[in-house]
Amino acid sequence: MEEHKRAQLLHKDRQYVWHPFTQMKDYENQDHLLIEKAEGIHLYGADGRTYMDTVSSWWVNVHGHGHPRIKQAIQEQMERMDHVMFSGLTHEPAIVLAEKLVERTPEGLTRVFYSDNGSTAVEVALKMSYQYWQHQGHKTKHKFIYLQGSYHGDTLGAVSVGGVDLYHAIFKPLLFSAYQAPSPAISGMEQSLEAIEDLMKRHQSEIAGIVIEPLIQAAGGMHIYGADFLTRLRALCNTYEIHLIADEVATGFGRTGKMFACEYAGMTPDLICLSKGLTAGVMPLSATLCTEEIYQSFYDDYETLKTFFHGHSFTGNPLACAVGIESLNIFEDDNLLGHVQEVSAYMQQQFRRFADLEHVDHIRGLGMVAALNLVKDKDRQEAYDPVKRAGYQIYKQGLEEGLILRPLGDTIYYWLPLCTTKEQVDTIIARTSSVIEKVTAKL
Amino acid sequence: MEEHKRAQLLHKDRQYVWHPFTQMKDYENQDHLLIEKAEGIHLYGADGRTYMDTVSSWWVNVHGHGHPRIKQAIQEQMERMDHVMFSGLTHEPAIVLAEKLVERTPEGLTRVFYSDNGSTAVEVALKMSYQYWQHQGHKTKHKFIYLQGSYHGDTLGAVSVGGVDLYHAIFKPLLFSAYQAPSPAISGMEQSLEAIEDLMKRHQSEIAGIVIEPLIQAAGGMHIYGADFLTRLRALCNTYEIHLIADEVATGFGRTGKMFACEYAGMTPDLICLSKGLTAGVMPLSATLCTEEIYQSFYDDYETLKTFFHGHSFTGNPLACAVGIESLNIFEDDNLLGHVQEVSAYMQQQFRRFADLEHVDHIRGLGMVAALNLVKDKDRQEAYDPVKRAGYQIYKQGLEEGLILRPLGDTIYYWLPLCTTKEQVDTIIARTSSVIEKVTAKL
Ligand SMILES: Cc1ncc(COP(=O)(O)O)c(C=O)c1O
Ligand SMILES: Cc1ncc(COP(=O)(O)O)c(C=O)c1O
Repeated sequence: MEEHKRAQLLHKDRQYVWHPFTQMKDYENQDHLLIEKAEGIHLYGADGRTYMDTVSSWWVNVHGHGHPRIKQAIQEQMERMDHVMFSGLTHEPAIVLAEKLVERTPEGLTRVFYSDNGSTAVEVALKMSYQYWQHQGHKTKHKFIYLQGSYHGDTLGAVSVGGVDLYHAIFKPLLFSAYQAPSPAISGMEQSLEAIEDLMKRHQSEIAGIVIEPLIQAAGGMHIYGADFLTRLRALCNTYEIHLIADEVATGFGRTGKMFACEYAGMTPDLICLSKGLTAGVMPLSATLCTEEIYQSFYDDYETLKTFFHGHSFTGNPLACAVGIESLNIFEDDNLLGHVQEVSAYMQQQFRRFADLEHVDHIRGLGMVAALNLVKDKDRQEAYDPVKRAGYQIYKQGLEEGLILRPLGDTIYYWLPLCTTKEQVDTIIARTSSVIEKVTAKL
Repeated sequence: MEEHKRAQLLHKDRQYVWHPFTQMKDYENQDHLLIEKAEGIHLYGADGRTYMDTVSSWWVNVHGHGHPRIKQAIQEQMERMDHVMFSGLTHEPAIVLAEKLVERTPEGLTRVFYSDNGSTAVEVALKMSYQYWQHQGHKTKHKFIYLQGSYHGDTLGAVSVGGVDLYHAIFKPLLFSAYQAPSPAISGMEQSLEAIEDLMKRHQSEIAGIVIEPLIQAAGGMHIYGADFLTRLRALCNTYEIHLIADEVATGFGRTGKMFACEYAGMTPDLICLSKGLTAGVMPLSATLCTEEIYQSFYDDYETLKTFFHGHSFTGNPLACAVGIESLNIFEDDNLLGHVQEVSAYMQQQFRRFADLEHVDHIRGLGMVAALNLVKDKDRQEAYDPVKRAGYQIYKQGLEEGLILRPLGDTIYYWLPLCTTKEQVDTIIARTSSVIEKVTAKL
């Protein structure tokens, strides 16, 4: 891109655009990185430089950017139908994708309700769970349990079950009241399960469901816990008749090494929330799947007023559904989970080498996800002064070395596209190593 | 489509798909209408029949389906970049669209925050308004006023300011508390303004904002009111220092005859919510614009913790932004508002002829929107017994006559694509006439 055009666009960016999750003043004396092209795992800056997308563009990208089959699917769908309303009407892309989702998700999830993003997928799950209990005559069941450190989106229903104070605390007066339980990843599995059982026992008649991010609490800081927790949580939910809502918005579609994280526990939740990788990271779409029992509790004569009155204008968008179908086809045709198994094993092994670095602690990972914490003093488990914004320095140094890193606080993580190769892993690891060394040397 | 394939898809639709805002049992002995192609204002059924999309596919479609320039814009964008994260990074489509939105929306709205659908656009506005007051030290301002009969979406924050009991009442325990005011369209302007002023006076220190659908309360039943209300509401909001949030998700982008409904009052809201027509109805995208004053109250050193911690994975999706830009270009190149002026005047005139029908009452309209109520007895203002589901009968008869009509209760309405021609208006009017006569004869 011409320098003049680039400067002009960046000027307009600063003039008109409010970026998400961003203190805009951070960009007072620094530009946002202007991207003009994306291909495979590479983003091409208007500055002529190339960056590796190690966070899959906020955990959405699956097959790399600009995959030819995805392009083709969009083009073909555009020739037939852009968008039609999904009430009264239906269409092939939404039907076929629904069938595929029911087939691929854990056994026992039978119905697909589409919406537009991860937050709405969670809102749908919460509302369905609550309304289910209303239909059952359990009128007092309108509370939910969530885990410390959890993130389920930014609409106010989703924020109500959010456990990250930095993001969520300020909105307290606008939230419904819910119970927070300790996280298995932060406080340990036994303590978490004990507290959850205690809440369920004491408040059974009030609690509709518990919502969790299976295995990886992502936005809260890439906290990872074991599958045992899921198995035992499923048992508790059965005992106390409480819905288990699995938010696989981030973990779904192969990122953890299995198609869905719940599979590690062979566990079927009552509701599952999907988005991000659902369209291979190309455009917004989400889906909430539920059990037949939940679906049937809404299925009645109109006059009984059991309709689920929820919907979004672009529900079941044919373009997004066509992309979703093609993405699942690529999974199969390319044996993508086989590739992930191989590359992720290699990546995790290489990643562990960061343990040797002086300021690196708490290395963890699963599938294409890996994380570490930067610390001031490893032995004394001393964190950096937050004012140093170590993570933010890493982000900036990452750009210098051609890496898109987007630390959460002082947690550096990878959330790699599933198509990443071993050779690319090598490059990413080498560059990250250099980034960490340079930044920690100056902190 | 082959009959075998059609039957198979409809079978799968029934097996896997939960449609929005739908009592699925209504489709126990009846299929959803399977659409296989959409072009202009026509939808092509897999049954070989053609239907006119008189509701613009839930009020989203602008230029007709499958517009060649929109197709082209998507294809070109796909060649460059499908999607990249919008934090730390930026790109031309989002920047250019933001500039255009600031230029076209009422003077004084300077900053664009993207999200994915109408509901999230409203959630963003509510959260911004609330957090603004927190930054100003008005810690108790966390309530909102909304109008009876209003609809702002289905996420729980949006439902909290929803005024349609059928949709919203059941979720009460999950909602934040808000003040309902009478609607100018239902209770009259004076009564509405008086009640609003009374609420503002008594609860000024608690109220952050008032959220309204300018001129047309759409989902609540196509209630239409005059622009004077907006002018006087703006004055009240100034007096009592309360944000005016204009939800133009439905009314925006020319539907009312002006680009935005607020223009009828020459009024600038503090926040405006846009979606639906923003992408010409092709794919999900929304935007919340705010004044410079609101933006600046968040703009500070990171440590002050004034960041707006809100964001969605697909924020600023480049494909959707590219479509949004091209749609606005078409508005200009085709002088679309000129076309709308002409066609809408003609349509409104023709629509008024329904007044002669025995069971038609309360004809109203604005721009490409028109509505009427079916009544059992016009003189005695007697409604049909709800058990008859008159509107639902109209929907079914509409399909018989090649019209997609989607009544709200017993309110029949048009929400025509802006590209609709006078000839098409004639056909739609003639068919609707026949539908109404046939249905009312049997009720
Ligand atoms: C005025 C208004 N606001 C908000 C919404 C919600 O938009 P969405 O369905 O895209 O969430 C709608 C949808 O019909 C609407 O009409
Ligand atoms: C686990 C989880 N749930 C929900 C969401 C919200 O999704 P969206 O940003 O699409 O609204 C996210 C987004 O990061 C997520 O990680």
